[in-house]
Amino acid sequence: MNKNSSNIMALTPNTSNKRETVCIYGTGDFGRALGHKLIQSGYPVVYGSRSTQISNLIPKDAEVLGHAEAAQKAAIIIIAIQRQHYNFLTPLAEVLRGKVLVDISNNLKLNQYPESNAEYLAQLLPGSKVVKAFNTVSAWALQSGTLDASRQVFVCGDDVEAKQMVMNIVRALGLTPVDKGSLLAAQEIENYPLQLFPMWKFPMFLSLGLTAFFFFYCLALDVIYTYIYENNNFSFFIAITIPNRVCPVMALILLALVYLPGIFAAIIQLYRGTKYHRFPDWLDKWMLCRKQLGLIALAFASLHAVFTLVTPLRAFVRWRISKGIIAQVLSNKTEPLNNTNAWLSDSYLALGILGYFLFVLLGITSLPSVSNNVNWREFRFVQSKLGYLALILCTAHTLVYGGKWFLSPSAYKWYLPNIYILSLIVPCAVLVVKFVLIFPCVDKPLTQIRQGWERNPKYSE
Amino acid sequence: MNKNSSNIMALTPNTSNKRETVCIYGTGDFGRALGHKLIQSGYPVVYGSRSTQISNLIPKDAEVLGHAEAAQKAAIIIIAIQRQHYNFLTPLAEVLRGKVLVDISNNLKLNQYPESNAEYLAQLLPGSKVVKAFNTVSAWALQSGTLDASRQVFVCGDDVEAKQMVMNIVRALGLTPVDKGSLLAAQEIENYPLQLFPMWKFPMFLSLGLTAFFFFYCLALDVIYTYIYENNNFSFFIAITIPNRVCPVMALILLALVYLPGIFAAIIQLYRGTKYHRFPDWLDKWMLCRKQLGLIALAFASLHAVFTLVTPLRAFVRWRISKGIIAQVLSNKTEPLNNTNAWLSDSYLALGILGYFLFVLLGITSLPSVSNNVNWREFRFVQSKLGYLALILCTAHTLVYGGKWFLSPSAYKWYLPNIYILSLIVPCAVLVVKFVLIFPCVDKPLTQIRQGWERNPKYSE
Amino acid sequence: MNKNSSNIMALTPNTSNKRETVCIYGTGDFGRALGHKLIQSGYPVVYGSRSTQISNLIPKDAEVLGHAEAAQKAAIIIIAIQRQHYNFLTPLAEVLRGKVLVDISNNLKLNQYPESNAEYLAQLLPGSKVVKAFNTVSAWALQSGTLDASRQVFVCGDDVEAKQMVMNIVRALGLTPVDKGSLLAAQEIENYPLQLFPMWKFPMFLSLGLTAFFFFYCLALDVIYTYIYENNNFSFFIAITIPNRVCPVMALILLALVYLPGIFAAIIQLYRGTKYHRFPDWLDKWMLCRKQLGLIALAFASLHAVFTLVTPLRAFVRWRISKGIIAQVLSNKTEPLNNTNAWLSDSYLALGILGYFLFVLLGITSLPSVSNNVNWREFRFVQSKLGYLALILCTAHTLVYGGKWFLSPSAYKWYLPNIYILSLIVPCAVLVVKFVLIFPCVDKPLTQIRQGWERNPKYSE
Repeated sequence: MNKNSSNIMALTPNTSNKRETVCIYGTGDFGRALGHKLIQSGYPVVYGSRSTQISNLIPKDAEVLGHAEAAQKAAIIIIAIQRQHYNFLTPLAEVLRGKVLVDISNNLKLNQYPESNAEYLAQLLPGSKVVKAFNTVSAWALQSGTLDASRQVFVCGDDVEAKQMVMNIVRALGLTPVDKGSLLAAQEIENYPLQLFPMWKFPMFLSLGLTAFFFFYCLALDVIYTYIYENNNFSFFIAITIPNRVCPVMALILLALVYLPGIFAAIIQLYRGTKYHRFPDWLDKWMLCRKQLGLIALAFASLHAVFTLVTPLRAFVRWRISKGIIAQVLSNKTEPLNNTNAWLSDSYLALGILGYFLFVLLGITSLPSVSNNVNWREFRFVQSKLGYLALILCTAHTLVYGGKWFLSPSAYKWYLPNIYILSLIVPCAVLVVKFVLIFPCVDKPLTQIRQGWERNPKYSE
Repeated sequence: MNKNSSNIMALTPNTSNKRETVCIYGTGDFGRALGHKLIQSGYPVVYGSRSTQISNLIPKDAEVLGHAEAAQKAAIIIIAIQRQHYNFLTPLAEVLRGKVLVDISNNLKLNQYPESNAEYLAQLLPGSKVVKAFNTVSAWALQSGTLDASRQVFVCGDDVEAKQMVMNIVRALGLTPVDKGSLLAAQEIENYPLQLFPMWKFPMFLSLGLTAFFFFYCLALDVIYTYIYENNNFSFFIAITIPNRVCPVMALILLALVYLPGIFAAIIQLYRGTKYHRFPDWLDKWMLCRKQLGLIALAFASLHAVFTLVTPLRAFVRWRISKGIIAQVLSNKTEPLNNTNAWLSDSYLALGILGYFLFVLLGITSLPSVSNNVNWREFRFVQSKLGYLALILCTAHTLVYGGKWFLSPSAYKWYLPNIYILSLIVPCAVLVVKFVLIFPCVDKPLTQIRQGWERNPKYSE
Repeated sequence: MNKNSSNIMALTPNTSNKRETVCIYGTGDFGRALGHKLIQSGYPVVYGSRSTQISNLIPKDAEVLGHAEAAQKAAIIIIAIQRQHYNFLTPLAEVLRGKVLVDISNNLKLNQYPESNAEYLAQLLPGSKVVKAFNTVSAWALQSGTLDASRQVFVCGDDVEAKQMVMNIVRALGLTPVDKGSLLAAQEIENYPLQLFPMWKFPMFLSLGLTAFFFFYCLALDVIYTYIYENNNFSFFIAITIPNRVCPVMALILLALVYLPGIFAAIIQLYRGTKYHRFPDWLDKWMLCRKQLGLIALAFASLHAVFTLVTPLRAFVRWRISKGIIAQVLSNKTEPLNNTNAWLSDSYLALGILGYFLFVLLGITSLPSVSNNVNWREFRFVQSKLGYLALILCTAHTLVYGGKWFLSPSAYKWYLPNIYILSLIVPCAVLVVKFVLIFPCVDKPLTQIRQGWERNPKYSE
């Protein structure tokens, strides 16, 4: 494999003599890793350090000078030291006047300080041009060269030219600069690498809790009840049968929970007669995590699909089928085709397939690169029209599948309803209320409210 | 859940004192929604209005002044009024000189006016710097905070600095500005939110029409014919059996239609001996919607795959299988393994799986974020080489599956061919002509023509 | 279909009178195609040519002048001639002073010249502002208007204003400019269109080689051995049975190979006691193609899933099942449910489904648009934690599936082990070493090393 072709986008070779010198303050881990990478990309690097003794930790080709001398050699100074030590820079204010200072620091927790590190640096050295950058890249990633994750480097700063200079360095290192505007964005940029899927936390805990509840509910009804009263050991139901009951129930409930907050919002707006009051806090949060709820619902629906398709491969199912055939043979009677059964079986399968198909379509549309290519009208068409259609199809799938057991007393073991009856409550409620909301007499005032009309404006303009 | 972490990318808190004042002309729905959001993001907002009486519709923290006074307070004025009323701005020309005017207007239909609203505004007020922005965001989305769809805001304008100022505001609101260049792009930006999948319309109608035709064709042959002549009620075939006949047929035909225009283009170029004449209009349009045709074909192929995998779960299929086994038992003969049958069954399944696999690969490559990461050579390799391979495999899959029925007279109910015979016409024609086109004696002149050579240049240079 | 709506994003109509004249040097294929497209987009085009006789190859609406006259008419000159002829421009240096020269040239192979064509042009004409652009777009794509592939045009140059002017033209042609920084990036941009999946070559060849090996291994054991010793013709196993043995084996081995280099890297770092030495070259390369290895593994796993789900549809399987049932009937004994078998069958299916589910999740996370939206912490969580969990589940799936045959002598035809035993070697080794590495006594020094600590620093700072 050609060495150049393998990571040609990451490194620009043979250009070492043209790059401008970059100064790095601080010889800690990130300072050294960045220095290594800069030298690889052809930048002369000079370190500013208290002790100018050359440590073998510092890249061979780098120079090490005192802080003031190092700063004079370069137009760009990367501040690879911690915020607590920033005040040692104040005596250097004169040397750093007009220089570009790159703040790469991160904090240990969200919103640790009242102002961002970069803004603090800009306050300390008002004569310098502070640019925030590189804090989203880890030293380990720079060092090992394996930038598998995002190559995006968020850059912000008040001076456009200084920002351009830093963005050129970012590009030369094989990374993609993303301009986030003025230095006000620094707080946001510093908080970014500290997050761990913040939007996913609530949906994940909710679905884990519900899954656990439904799992033990099924375990009680399908395994324990059968063992006690029918003396059958169906413990192996834990592996596939019970998951394949819990997954569709979770998928249906979570999909309904995606559309429930929209219903609440409409009712609140109709009641208040205005859209200019904030929704209650819980509703705001709920609306913000609808995408995540939907994607988790899609994951459950996918698991349900695979668990179902795998059915004919299960030893238990093969045994049950052959038992049925043998029983027919031995009793010497051939059952005729039950047309109603054929209709029911085929139509719940078809409804499920179509509902799942629309569901996958919704999932694909929520991929960032796809949703960036549709406008608002298209997005609302897909997420609202197709989404409700998916909900209707999936609810119908469950209704047709379980319909015949609704009134059968044998389905109520320990007087508890089967879980697919529980799973139908939320989606049916959502669909009924939505059906009411699209009646013209309700829809018209709602549309007016959403276009800015108010029922009781206190002052008319 | 930490409140800050939940939408930290959307709002930059604690910075209200540093933002520059923004002026909004117009207190309509969008003006108010934008004002709310700007205040949330820390911008002081002043409204310019005829009546300066404070309406409760206007956000509490905003100031309301006359148009001239409001404009003097801010460097950026957002024009949230309709194009028809723009001429009221002309008397304010002196006040607005040198200010940045942000045109956020939308039209009701595509290309409603000869020039875009933003260009019209720039003509009215030549002393101001007009920037087009925000028209792709809906007031409702801004208001409810649920920016699930595209966060992209297209920005264009002739003054680079003015554009930068507006882009900073866009970023501060948690949206992503996309620079579309000079004000000439305004028309395009104004048309964008009015579209509803324009490229999908023709492929969708074509496939709906074909689907309906094939559905009723199958309904006639498989359900009605059987009911009349064989007195079997197979009405439940409507749910799965017939869709699973129509889907593969549609997938194969649409996939062939993706490659047919390329064949036509090659023939036209060979005939004309030049590539410098425009193709006929219908061919141009067809070539532009090949990606959409391919994706719809992929959707049909996916439905076919799931409908097929679901087969063993169907009550009808289970009944038929057990009927077959019972018949064997009762007649007391065990059929030996039919090796030819095993070969045919396994090979059409394997061909279908491989063809579908390549098809999915093509679909993934057409995701915007993936196709942006491949160059032309790679894209053509995937779409042309792998695409044709997928077409060959899928055609072979159909041929092997239906092969044995081609000559059987029982397959021609009412003297009509079975639909998989119809489905083979287009793909076979495409493959045969393509096979001719890759012969060196045809391929060589075609390559030359595509590299710019002409057979009969009228003037030699 | 409305003509304007169909490709409204590609063309901005009605604006021909406002665009600035563009000059094109060279009337070759690309020069003509670009001229056509520029005229379509409303730019007046003037060609600079030795002979000013109008050729019909040149677009009708374009003017053709001598080089010097043409240059005087425009601020931007597109150099559509080959690098070898660039020196004819030196006499024109005075005319071209201050003009924007757009270098669109490509080379025939990677790194053909010591410096990029654009840098060479900038050296020849130091008074002009050279911008690299358009080389990633093919003339054929411009001509036919079917820009299905990437619409991205990489632009680089030392003069920011010149770059802006070129980027505006790029946008006006319906393409997306991507700023790659200063002219130093030109080499990279010129190499880009010459690549054909450079990162995929090694993983592809490796997996093709392994696949061929395992295919023939299975062919020998399952078809040839059976034919020789048991006189059964199972040649149709080639279509599905053998691929469905090879695919899971390949998926498991390749997934383990994704995590193996990380293990090696950890061991090397622990041994050396520092992270500041480069890894051996083979390990660097291996680490850079882990994503590709993982995606190929996912492809094999997907094929395995579909091949398995298709099982009940195979003629051979149906024959075997009915043979089994008939045998039971004829021997007049009904086998009871084997609980152990039911457990084994259900649990290896469930393990496989969950492992595959996590695997697909990893695949989705590696889509560029998704990985750009996660930060490093989130990316490492998904790729490392979930990735290892997927490896554990898939290994367990194989162990449970094959467990009972490990000690059975009939599984060792020709004294060779079954391939799933071979497939377990690498994943088990990876999991065992990883298990050792997460012990605190090993993990702690490793974490310290990765944070920059060294065991034997030669000079202390």
